[in-house]
Amino acid sequence: MEKNSEFYPKAYLLTRSLIPENQEMPIYFVRKWVTPRKYFYSRNHFPYPLLSKEAYRLEIGGLVDQPFIFSYEKLKTMPYSEMLVTLECSGNKRSKFIPKVFGEQWEDGAINQGLWKGVPLSYLLNITGINPLAKEIVFEGFDNGVRTDTDQLHYYRRSLPIDVAMNSPVLVAYEYNREPIPYKHGFPLRLIVHGWYGMASVKWLKRITVIDHEFKGPFQAIDYVYYPEKESDVGYPVTEINVNSTIQYPLDLMILNAGIHQIEGIAYTGKGNITKVSISTDSGETWKVATLQTNPDEPYSWTAWTYQWDVKVKGEYTILCRAEDSHGRAQPSEPFWNKKGYGYNAVSKVKVKVE
Amino acid sequence: MEKNSEFYPKAYLLTRSLIPENQEMPIYFVRKWVTPRKYFYSRNHFPYPLLSKEAYRLEIGGLVDQPFIFSYEKLKTMPYSEMLVTLECSGNKRSKFIPKVFGEQWEDGAINQGLWKGVPLSYLLNITGINPLAKEIVFEGFDNGVRTDTDQLHYYRRSLPIDVAMNSPVLVAYEYNREPIPYKHGFPLRLIVHGWYGMASVKWLKRITVIDHEFKGPFQAIDYVYYPEKESDVGYPVTEINVNSTIQYPLDLMILNAGIHQIEGIAYTGKGNITKVSISTDSGETWKVATLQTNPDEPYSWTAWTYQWDVKVKGEYTILCRAEDSHGRAQPSEPFWNKKGYGYNAVSKVKVKVE
Repeated sequence: MEKNSEFYPKAYLLTRSLIPENQEMPIYFVRKWVTPRKYFYSRNHFPYPLLSKEAYRLEIGGLVDQPFIFSYEKLKTMPYSEMLVTLECSGNKRSKFIPKVFGEQWEDGAINQGLWKGVPLSYLLNITGINPLAKEIVFEGFDNGVRTDTDQLHYYRRSLPIDVAMNSPVLVAYEYNREPIPYKHGFPLRLIVHGWYGMASVKWLKRITVIDHEFKGPFQAIDYVYYPEKESDVGYPVTEINVNSTIQYPLDLMILNAGIHQIEGIAYTGKGNITKVSISTDSGETWKVATLQTNPDEPYSWTAWTYQWDVKVKGEYTILCRAEDSHGRAQPSEPFWNKKGYGYNAVSKVKVKVE
Repeated sequence: MEKNSEFYPKAYLLTRSLIPENQEMPIYFVRKWVTPRKYFYSRNHFPYPLLSKEAYRLEIGGLVDQPFIFSYEKLKTMPYSEMLVTLECSGNKRSKFIPKVFGEQWEDGAINQGLWKGVPLSYLLNITGINPLAKEIVFEGFDNGVRTDTDQLHYYRRSLPIDVAMNSPVLVAYEYNREPIPYKHGFPLRLIVHGWYGMASVKWLKRITVIDHEFKGPFQAIDYVYYPEKESDVGYPVTEINVNSTIQYPLDLMILNAGIHQIEGIAYTGKGNITKVSISTDSGETWKVATLQTNPDEPYSWTAWTYQWDVKVKGEYTILCRAEDSHGRAQPSEPFWNKKGYGYNAVSKVKVKVE
């Protein structure tokens, strides 16, 4: 029997739904700083848009001094930034909420890290100028369709406050991992908002509009809202990524040999950087500090961590991981339950059996 | 933007572990009688074996009148049967047990149906003859390795009682879906035991040995045993497939429009055939009969079922499905919990929200 690559193991994206296509990364097999394109999670609100030549330009209008249409080719000649960014779907880990909540049942893999290259949004807005009355900036994608809760056609639209748009690392990106952005992830142009959950990083970016009021589109005022009470529609918006971590090895409910195992994973936050990761192998009785690995040139990247576990006694173990960030935030012991299941960041947990 | 096939949604196998490779079928996207090769679940005990030319023959020995070595080419010239068979891993649905059990956390997709062609085992055993002292027949695969619970090398081995080997539909198969068996699924020869969980259908079949005692290999006496008590090692073997069903649509925790939805899925049993599938859309208060679709030429195939659901009132619904077979078995309301998590067959359940 000849050996060829087909006989070697492959990991695949885990399909959560097909239309729209929603797939998560097999998080346990990704150990690198840069997620390869094939493991880039897909989280779509509508079917993939059909793009015409109009997609190769970006309109900036509304309350600006001078509206502009920038061509894709023009954008590629402008000053750029390149940065390693963690994108996480705000519904990542939704399947872990108890009581269960409706929606895509993401495990740990609706997360990605890649190298994005593009023009800083603030650079473009400095060209157009911004009217003093401006309050928010609305980003519209080419993707559109009908939501389950209305009969109307909607384009995907999200806004950012002026302050975030001008002062945070926000790109109008045209490259992912040194190649044109994959079609499924927003080609030709995608907004990349470091520090915010993925819903802010609008794909297939079509138009940017400066407005003088609070934007109330359904992906802002209905979805991507934390509703703490099941029976109430009072809530507040999902914005920055919570401090969080994921245990990549061992897998939950795995059976291991007695011996030395390297527990490993990633930690990340939307505010500042990760300062500490603590590991418990005895259900939280005692905690040890994990070794952190960061990339000094990439301030927006996730942090990799490892912990050597020498386990001699057979039995069942609960391994916990808690990350802390430079803003004094730590993963809570219990998740913050909310009706639509956003922002899960309770202490990460796997159970294993040693035999 | 040119349309090409890459832009259309794809489903993938869901990877549970890489070495050994364990992957399940995305059950929600399979509606056909025959599972395409790419959705065939993988459940391995060891890394894939490297095969030499020895793999192209099958040895039958032990308590037989005349030992034989049949070449692969010879087997392909012998009388054959072709049958549509449901293979299900006995750990399928393991993730649904509460309390959770250790091991691969299969959802509903460790199941497959395909057309197998091969020589009936009874035909081969009639050629070799069987000694009157014979009690069981042992099947050995080429796959081998070290188990977590011992330091010894083991080949994968399973046995069948003489009666099952001679009187049930058991094949020494060499084709799957009219092609050579895929390497990952047992090429060149695989035992196919209709009605038993998949562990009996030994892949990469190497040797058949007739013995006069009860076989006690670790995949028979340690694994694939129902242990009803967590703290006890008293148990009984996993054999035939329990009566069972899977709801393929809608998906669990899906959000739907009000209107007409076709609830659909499959039902199957290791004994006789499916006689009735009942659906409840009100958490079990009332039950309706689903429409069954069977294939009269294929007695060992699963049964497809559908139920038209007209839902006008918004809210949360629990949909249940209960299958019954011709041996008077029905899916129980609660699963039979057992320490290693085999044979889950409680009434199938999905929750949906209509908005």
